[in-house]
Amino acid sequence: MSSSMSEPARLTLDEVHALAMEIFDAHGLSRDQATAVADTVAAAERDDCKSHGLFRVPGYMASVKSGKVTPDAVPAVRDLAPGVARVDAGNGFAPLALKVGREPLVAKARAQGIAVLALVNGYHFAALWPETEALAERGLVAFACTGYIPCVAPAGGIRPLYGTNPIAFAWPRGEGRPPMVFDQATAACARGEIMIHERDGKPIPEGWAIDPDGNPTTDPAAGLAGAQLPFGGYKGAALALMVELLAGALIGDLFSYEAGERDNGDGGPSKGGEFVLAIDPARCAGGGESADGRAAWLAHAESLFGKILEQDGARLPSDRRYAARRRTPIEGIAIPRSLHDTLMELRAG
Amino acid sequence: MSSSMSEPARLTLDEVHALAMEIFDAHGLSRDQATAVADTVAAAERDDCKSHGLFRVPGYMASVKSGKVTPDAVPAVRDLAPGVARVDAGNGFAPLALKVGREPLVAKARAQGIAVLALVNGYHFAALWPETEALAERGLVAFACTGYIPCVAPAGGIRPLYGTNPIAFAWPRGEGRPPMVFDQATAACARGEIMIHERDGKPIPEGWAIDPDGNPTTDPAAGLAGAQLPFGGYKGAALALMVELLAGALIGDLFSYEAGERDNGDGGPSKGGEFVLAIDPARCAGGGESADGRAAWLAHAESLFGKILEQDGARLPSDRRYAARRRTPIEGIAIPRSLHDTLMELRAG
Repeated sequence: MSSSMSEPARLTLDEVHALAMEIFDAHGLSRDQATAVADTVAAAERDDCKSHGLFRVPGYMASVKSGKVTPDAVPAVRDLAPGVARVDAGNGFAPLALKVGREPLVAKARAQGIAVLALVNGYHFAALWPETEALAERGLVAFACTGYIPCVAPAGGIRPLYGTNPIAFAWPRGEGRPPMVFDQATAACARGEIMIHERDGKPIPEGWAIDPDGNPTTDPAAGLAGAQLPFGGYKGAALALMVELLAGALIGDLFSYEAGERDNGDGGPSKGGEFVLAIDPARCAGGGESADGRAAWLAHAESLFGKILEQDGARLPSDRRYAARRRTPIEGIAIPRSLHDTLMELRAG
Repeated sequence: MSSSMSEPARLTLDEVHALAMEIFDAHGLSRDQATAVADTVAAAERDDCKSHGLFRVPGYMASVKSGKVTPDAVPAVRDLAPGVARVDAGNGFAPLALKVGREPLVAKARAQGIAVLALVNGYHFAALWPETEALAERGLVAFACTGYIPCVAPAGGIRPLYGTNPIAFAWPRGEGRPPMVFDQATAACARGEIMIHERDGKPIPEGWAIDPDGNPTTDPAAGLAGAQLPFGGYKGAALALMVELLAGALIGDLFSYEAGERDNGDGGPSKGGEFVLAIDPARCAGGGESADGRAAWLAHAESLFGKILEQDGARLPSDRRYAARRRTPIEGIAIPRSLHDTLMELRAG
């Protein structure tokens, strides 16, 4: 197939990973750091989560070039309590720290029934479903949240204070089925969605943002100058506040407004913590088996998923991602030619 | 002050508690059960949460009269793991089980850093802020959630499956300040709010409910016949699903749709579990003190609350309740004369 300048670039998933590795190598990332970030980027492309895939690589590299992020950081795990581990990312990217912290967290959750991993001193730019899904693949129920830079106004206020503050939850399904996972911002929309509306000269839906005077607006420029809104009004704002407290004060890392004050504006990820929770359902449901020999908690949850899916039009939160995951290993993925050109330049160092 | 038949009845908080105790005694509740439920009812009236106050007492008593709830149940705590305790409510009301389970949960959270209390085999009818606030008063961060009977459609579906499924979160503030607490349904509104609109012949706002064909409706009767909507669209539905899994399959209790199938329709609470989480921030933030000698996590959180409150119009989620709590010990509370009449009849047995 010929590829003109305006056609998207097509890559296999192996090519996505290899390209990311080459770029990271060219920018001085250690082998472990490069592999962890490339795994995250390739997983996002595999699941058709374009906003966390190769699109993010220029930002990652900008943060290395600016000196903000340590490219060869070595994460260090410390035991804080029987149910609490802390992983210090060493001023590096979050993916390697999450990888290093995973087994200590799994071991603690199995031993105690429930455990927390407090990720601190790292730079998070990815989705949260990779880490929660990985825990659910090990048979654990997982929850994670993280802050960002200030975008969203608190309930009743009009100036940005909270980040987009995503929360993710994963439930293991066993029998070769991928976990049920959701991963969603507590903001009504991603900041990038407003930017795309501005670029395309389109109005934004009501409920996404307010202008600098606090009035509802459908003008994307006014919304970007004002504040984003949480999803679902004051209830979403309360969840955003919970995320600030869990991923900030509780684990000893920055609030979104502090991360915003410290960030050098290089276009890369901002500094911040992540709160990751893992629960062993076998220790909570008091054991037990269903009539067909499966764990009682597992069979019970499947009956609920069945009730959901018997309604026409209903689906589980992760179904769209898993459909992409079946498709992309065969069809490969596409990225805009302009992004591909940028990545080729970055590969050259 | 004279009290005609149409004027509201006024009571002191002591009178609220005493009236509830007399009614519960007249219906065979054990002293411990009666005290726990009366404490919950009186706390709701104190904080001006009328929908969980004396208004609920006729429902509580209906469930005793119908034989659904065991009035003298003795909750039993069992240790499932170092970080997990289960309290079996013994087919009784939830408040006593929560009270009995509190100290084991606090001890586990302090020893392990994080712990879960799985409340099973009980009847929950109250708000969740009392139990989360009580944990935060002990210096712990708390989260709780519970199901109900099916009211809310899953994402993409049109038939009720999830309960109104509230979630609550509490953060300790120290220095004599009451905790920051939020307690909110994952449904867009309480079922009772739609009923009140129907009674008053008023349309409901868009976004509260769909009719039996799945179309958006502002007709309260059509909404009650159809399904309630989660707050914030598919994101709220994902949270409702998380609540079903945590308070159902994870702890070995009923999903909302199962509770609905089993309930005898006596107007009282439905059976179901509650998931209660407690975290010791002193074990998560790695200790440390702020410059003024306070715990680092505590001082840090106060700086965020300060940032919220410096915005005109912004407030913390629990501020309205705490304002009522300062007012009602002096002014007392008022209830509709018709409710007071009903309670007088119930007091007679």
